[in-house]
Parts: sequence; C-alpha cells; structure tokens
Amino acid sequence: MNEHLLFNLVDLAGTFAFAISGATAARREGLDLFGILVIAYVTACGGGIARDLYIGAVPPAGLSEWRYLLTAVVAALATIVAYRQVERLDHPVRLFDAMGLGLFAVYGAHKALLATGNIEVAIILGMVTAIGGGLARDMLLARVPVVLQREIYASAAFAGAALAVLGERVGWPVLWATWLPILLCFTLRFVSLRFGWNLPRFGGSSSES
Amino acid sequence: MNEHLLFNLVDLAGTFAFAISGATAARREGLDLFGILVIAYVTACGGGIARDLYIGAVPPAGLSEWRYLLTAVVAALATIVAYRQVERLDHPVRLFDAMGLGLFAVYGAHKALLATGNIEVAIILGMVTAIGGGLARDMLLARVPVVLQREIYASAAFAGAALAVLGERVGWPVLWATWLPILLCFTLRFVSLRFGWNLPRFGGSSSES
Amino acid sequence: MNEHLLFNLVDLAGTFAFAISGATAARREGLDLFGILVIAYVTACGGGIARDLYIGAVPPAGLSEWRYLLTAVVAALATIVAYRQVERLDHPVRLFDAMGLGLFAVYGAHKALLATGNIEVAIILGMVTAIGGGLARDMLLARVPVVLQREIYASAAFAGAALAVLGERVGWPVLWATWLPILLCFTLRFVSLRFGWNLPRFGGSSSES
Repeated sequence: MNEHLLFNLVDLAGTFAFAISGATAARREGLDLFGILVIAYVTACGGGIARDLYIGAVPPAGLSEWRYLLTAVVAALATIVAYRQVERLDHPVRLFDAMGLGLFAVYGAHKALLATGNIEVAIILGMVTAIGGGLARDMLLARVPVVLQREIYASAAFAGAALAVLGERVGWPVLWATWLPILLCFTLRFVSLRFGWNLPRFGGSSSES
Repeated sequence: MNEHLLFNLVDLAGTFAFAISGATAARREGLDLFGILVIAYVTACGGGIARDLYIGAVPPAGLSEWRYLLTAVVAALATIVAYRQVERLDHPVRLFDAMGLGLFAVYGAHKALLATGNIEVAIILGMVTAIGGGLARDMLLARVPVVLQREIYASAAFAGAALAVLGERVGWPVLWATWLPILLCFTLRFVSLRFGWNLPRFGGSSSES
Repeated sequence: MNEHLLFNLVDLAGTFAFAISGATAARREGLDLFGILVIAYVTACGGGIARDLYIGAVPPAGLSEWRYLLTAVVAALATIVAYRQVERLDHPVRLFDAMGLGLFAVYGAHKALLATGNIEVAIILGMVTAIGGGLARDMLLARVPVVLQREIYASAAFAGAALAVLGERVGWPVLWATWLPILLCFTLRFVSLRFGWNLPRFGGSSSES
C-alpha cells in the first residue's frame, strides 16, 4: 500500500474516532443537534487548529480543509442516528482513537518543527495537536479533562512527539521517522488501556470526571 | 438613513446586548466589579477576537477599537447600577441580541471571506464571531454553553453566515448581501424565541444549564 | 545589582510562583503526574502565550524559551515531592506571586505597546499576560476563576499595566517606567491581601470557588 494513502487513511480514521468521542460526550450531556455537531468538530479539529495558531499558519487547516469538517459531521450524525451501534463499536473506536493520537502527535510535531525549527516548540505542539481537541471538548462541557486525570494518554502523545522530533533531527529516513513514533504512541496507549495502567496521582479526594 | 450608519448602530446595539448578557450572568454568579467587567467584555468581543486570530488579523479589532471596549464597560456598569431596570429591559435586550447575532455572523463571514477566499472558513468564522463570545462567557463561568443546549441560536447564526457567503459569491448587490442574511438570522432567532422552538436532542438526563 | 539581572530574577520567581499555584490546584483536584505538569505550565505561561498570539508574535516566547518550561516543571515536581514544605512556603509563594503579577502586567503591556503602538491594546494585553494563566488554569479545572470573584488581583494588574503605558508614553526613564508600575501592582496586591480588601460584589448567592 502507498504510504501516503496509509497516512491519509489513519488521519481520517483518527479524526472520525475523535469526533465520535466528542459527539458521544455531547449527546450524553443533553446538547441539541447543533451542539453535538459543534463538540464533535471541536474535539476532532481543535488540537490542530490550536497548533496552527501557535505557528502562525492561518487560516488553520482544520478550518480550510473541508474533509476534516465533513468527517466530523459524518461521525456526529452516525452517533446520533445509530447510537446503539456506535456504542457497540467501542472497541474499534478506541483502536482508531489510539491511532489518531499517535498520528496527530507525530504530524503536529513535524509541522511545528518545519515551521519554527525549535525542538521544544515541536514537542509541545505535537502534544497540543493530539490532546488539544479533548481538552477543548471537556472545557466546553465544563468538566475536568479526563486526559489529565488518568490513563496513559497525554504522556503517550508526548512520547510520540518527542521520538518524532528526535528521529527527524538524527536524520532517520522519513518512513521510519513517521511510523516508529506513531507506533510507540499507539502501543503505549493501547497496552496501558489493556492492562489499566495509570500514571501516579498524589492527592485529591475529588471524584469529578 | 445612511446604510453605513445603520450598520454601525446595529453593531454597537448588538455589542451592548451581548455585554449585558455577560454582565448579568457574571453578577448572578457573584463575581466582583472587575470580574463583571471582564465577562461583559469577553462576551461582547470574544467572538470577533477569535475570528481575527484565525485569519491572522492582529491585533484583533475587538482589542484595538476602543468603542467596543467602551460599549461593553457602559453595558456592564448599567447592569450593576441599574440591575432592576436592566432586568425589566429584557425584551429590548433580546431584540438587540438577535440583531447582534445576525450582524456578527454576517460581518464575520464577510471579513473571513475577504481575508481567505475560502467559503468553508467564512461560514465557520461567521458562526464563531456570533457565538464565540457566549461560549467564552460560559466556559469562564464553568457551565455548559447554553447556546449548544437548546433554542435556535447557533443554527440561526449558521444560516445567516451561509446565506451571506452565498450572496457574496453569487454577486448580490452589497446592500442585499448584507441585510438579507442578517434578516434571516434575526427572524429565525426571534420567531423561535417567540414560539419556543428548539432543535432536537437525543439523550442526556443532565439537568445542567 | 544589574537591573537586567533583577528583571530576569523576578521573571523566573514569578513564573515559579504561578506554576506552584497551578500544580497545587491540580494536585488537589486529583490530576495525575502529567496533568499536574500541564496545569503548572499553563498557569505559568498561558498569559504570555495568549498575549503573543494577539500581537502575532509566533511562536510565543512561552513555548520557545525553554527556561519557562523548565521553571514550571521544577515547580510542579517540587509541589509533588515536597508538598508539605511547599504548603509551608505559602508566605514566600504569595510574595513571588504578587511580584510576578506586577512584572507580567508591566512587561506584557510594554511588549504589546512596542508591537502595536496602541495604548488600549497594551493595557488589555498587560492584564492578559498577568491573569491569563490563572484564568486558563481555572477553566481547565472547571471552576469559576478565583481572580474574577474576589480580592484585588486582576485590578492590581490593570493598575500596573495602565501606569506602565502612561509612563512609557510620557517618556519616563526606562528604569522608572519599569519598576514603578511593578511596585504599584505589587503593593496593591500585597496590601489588599494583608488587610483582606475586596472589590464590591453586587449579587449572586453562589458559593462556587
């Protein structure tokens, strides 16, 4: 399979999975049709849009490339008209979500490194690309972001972004520098989900989620 | 009446109404004097400021044109010193708010289309201009945005922005391309308020608002 | 002591204090290791990052200058491994926080005035620099921002930013135009803390904080 095609497929599958997580949360919160569409779109594209603002790439690709909006709308409508089936798709959706997390982190880091040449900016913006949409979703739904509370999620994105920047600086072939970090992030995320791994917590009797 | 003057009048009346909705919510939440001013200003100008960031128009007009800040401050002070009277003005404020919604959506779409030439960006940023301030207000007050939960509000802004972009592309005279979409948005919003129309909701036993 | 060195010292001490306030709040909310790091960094650098976006200075200094990230990470780790001691440091942390508030407001106003030449933008962005991180922290933790509810905090930042812009316009010597407004903001903040001063509130039976 052509590697470019594979990249685009993973990109859209990740967008789809992110949008489903947004639409599901919005539906559960009782938002109306339009609210569900908005939250699905923000969850899917918010991270990339923030990254583009930080590197001055305006208008952000998440706004100007219609395939992202379309993917998010289709995912939201699917969540609305076929909620039961989407819920039963829980397993593949988590798979796509973990793939999207890796691809967003790595692509975000790559784009930011290209634009700024700054390693620190690239790693941070890789993470922002991957987890920014989820943070925006939870801020809009007035809840403490799940990804900052438990599970290996933000930290998996960090690992992927950091390895991508390292690989690019060290001069790995593009294919490796792209897919190895994606694989690392995906594996960390998926294995931690499978075994219920969490990062340590140090306080808080809060039961918010 | 000069059409330019009319535009500016509606612009400031809308800003005033948005600021009042912000100041009222902030006052109810128990914020202090400065907090009320901040929330009023963010509600009135936050949408336009976000739009300007997304198209790279910095510093945003909402920051650099003092008449917006002044209007927001006057609205906030009026809400503080004459709360009873402002509450009794509920009806005209809703009227101004609906007019502002239409004008912000249409003007935002127009400015974004001019800056980017991209239809999708223009429609999305028209909506952002119209509802972004309300979203920011509710995020700051830690509540799920009202405009995503019920009533024809975000969707009326969408209709206005979409018609504005259509009209501009098809080549309507400026006067029509400006005021027809504003009228559409205003009418949708006002009629739906009058008759209690809502978009469908699909789940959620949440009672948050 | 060299004035430049003093400036950098206060800058980092303020960053450290802001990061501690973020890490402490995140820890109390039960976030995990990575969540605490993220909130500490956002609290310390979020205001400056927002200011840089609004004036088009990308990538923002808060992302590209590693000493800010490093300071925030050290503060977060200190809060984690030595929570008891950090709690006992409450007094110096408040001192640093008040110093940071003044310096961020004044430096933010200065940088924005230099970039835009607009007095209103400079004063607003001075405030954004000083209180933006705290607002972002509270939005992420899904609570109404403390600084908009009580105490002389946002208003002290406003006073500092406004005096800085005035001094620069009137042509004070740099040393005065820098340190007098910082001292004003610091004093307002510190004296109000000492004597429990608050701005007036006008309604709200809310007990949220």
